[in-house]
Amino acid sequence: MGLNIKPLADRVLIEPAAAETKTASGIIIPDNAKEKPQKGTVIAAGKGTKDEPITVKVGDTVLYGKYAGTELKLEGKDYLIMRESDILAIV
Amino acid sequence: MGLNIKPLADRVLIEPAAAETKTASGIIIPDNAKEKPQKGTVIAAGKGTKDEPITVKVGDTVLYGKYAGTELKLEGKDYLIMRESDILAIV
Amino acid sequence: MGLNIKPLADRVLIEPAAAETKTASGIIIPDNAKEKPQKGTVIAAGKGTKDEPITVKVGDTVLYGKYAGTELKLEGKDYLIMRESDILAIV
Amino acid sequence: MGLNIKPLADRVLIEPAAAETKTASGIIIPDNAKEKPQKGTVIAAGKGTKDEPITVKVGDTVLYGKYAGTELKLEGKDYLIMRESDILAIV
Amino acid sequence: MGLNIKPLADRVLIEPAAAETKTASGIIIPDNAKEKPQKGTVIAAGKGTKDEPITVKVGDTVLYGKYAGTELKLEGKDYLIMRESDILAIV
Amino acid sequence: MGLNIKPLADRVLIEPAAAETKTASGIIIPDNAKEKPQKGTVIAAGKGTKDEPITVKVGDTVLYGKYAGTELKLEGKDYLIMRESDILAIV
Amino acid sequence: MGLNIKPLADRVLIEPAAAETKTASGIIIPDNAKEKPQKGTVIAAGKGTKDEPITVKVGDTVLYGKYAGTELKLEGKDYLIMRESDILAIV
Repeated sequence: MGLNIKPLADRVLIEPAAAETKTASGIIIPDNAKEKPQKGTVIAAGKGTKDEPITVKVGDTVLYGKYAGTELKLEGKDYLIMRESDILAIV
Repeated sequence: MGLNIKPLADRVLIEPAAAETKTASGIIIPDNAKEKPQKGTVIAAGKGTKDEPITVKVGDTVLYGKYAGTELKLEGKDYLIMRESDILAIV
Repeated sequence: MGLNIKPLADRVLIEPAAAETKTASGIIIPDNAKEKPQKGTVIAAGKGTKDEPITVKVGDTVLYGKYAGTELKLEGKDYLIMRESDILAIV
Repeated sequence: MGLNIKPLADRVLIEPAAAETKTASGIIIPDNAKEKPQKGTVIAAGKGTKDEPITVKVGDTVLYGKYAGTELKLEGKDYLIMRESDILAIV
Repeated sequence: MGLNIKPLADRVLIEPAAAETKTASGIIIPDNAKEKPQKGTVIAAGKGTKDEPITVKVGDTVLYGKYAGTELKLEGKDYLIMRESDILAIV
Repeated sequence: MGLNIKPLADRVLIEPAAAETKTASGIIIPDNAKEKPQKGTVIAAGKGTKDEPITVKVGDTVLYGKYAGTELKLEGKDYLIMRESDILAIV
Repeated sequence: MGLNIKPLADRVLIEPAAAETKTASGIIIPDNAKEKPQKGTVIAAGKGTKDEPITVKVGDTVLYGKYAGTELKLEGKDYLIMRESDILAIV
């Protein structure tokens, strides 16, 4: 969380949770069968817009749709940046 | 209903009712012929938006269109999260 | 009209009128040639939105476009649920 | 104009003018070559919306685009029901 | 300009200028090679909408895009009826 | 700039700059390889809309996207007429 | 930054950062395999719109989506001009 990045307006920077590499019954999932994670941690958030202030906070674990956001690589790690309206829920 | 999840804005988390496995005349429906349920129970709801407060309450049984919402798996169970405007009626 | 169902916002629950089974000249129409009815009775209506209160009332006979609404089966009968803006007129 | 029908909001019920069956030079047009009329008479009109009151009146002859409106058969006659914004002009 | 026609709202009735039948060098253009005119005269105009009053006046010569408006035949002559926002400029 | 033309609302009339006919290294570009110019001079501008006054002035050199605007031929010269929002910058 | 260019409204002129020509392990990337940069420096910014003032400043390093903006060549160098809403974050 030491990234120096300020998302604009209603954008939120999210670090996706690592995809699970085992099924419930312990079978190791080969790399190309892994489901893309839909859970992540808020790393940074904009200030919102005049009409909609931001409601998530840094550190919140959030759920989002499979195809939400834009992928960004920062210092070698993959992040997602999306509008807050693409976030479904805080868990 | 012990899930610790807070849908954002106008989103509602719904637990779909189990699909009926028998027809009215008692015939058991094979798995791939089951109709996707369109009824469910509200598990959690956001606070609504500035313009539209949320009107459904936790525990309400609701009807929704066949293709409404995003599927989410939480603790091994399937849920749907959708905007309140995708809910057709409370029954 | 004893259905316990509350459409949300600007939704209206309609019981479609039975399709006519005879032509004007008395010929019985085989089942697959029947035109889908475009007339129905309002069974339940939401409270409308902040901007548009609902104007149809329970019991009104209404006309609606051929492809309006979502089909719903409640207690074995077919209904349509649609936004009031999909209703063309009260007859 | 004795039809008991109340269009909703900004809808207008129009009786299309009969298509002309002769060309200017007196040639009778066979049925399948007739152009769809674009002129009609206002039979009933809604009350308009909060933002736009209705400006056409019952009895007005109006022009409308070729593909405007929804066809409705009432008591054996064909009508069109369209939004007032689909009406081009009063003649 | 003796047509008795009142365009609704932000509609404008335009009489297209005759397409030029000669090229600059005097060659007569055969009928099917003529370019559709993009210039015309305002014959009648609506009162505008609540948000945008009409700014063109009857008699103005206006320019409009090639595909703007709906063609209308009134008393044997071809006219175009279009929204004022489809008019590009007054010349 | 003696053209007598008044663009409506937020439209701007632009005279495109002549396409460059030589590459940086002096090679003459054949006619069909020329890039369409994206720079031009404001010849006339509308008064803007109620919400957005016009900010470009006659004589400004402006940049615009490759596919912006409608081509118009006035007195034998080619112009572009576009909405001010299609103009990217003043140079 | 001596370019004399004023982006209009909510447009921002950006100088894309040079694409990296080596991979992390030092391998030189051939030209046609280079990823298009998604990072750049703000060279000039408009004044914003009535509803949304501009929040980025000249000199800010910004991130933007792969397909954001319009490419512009000014004095032999490539720039991007985009709406501020296409900028994801300031880094």
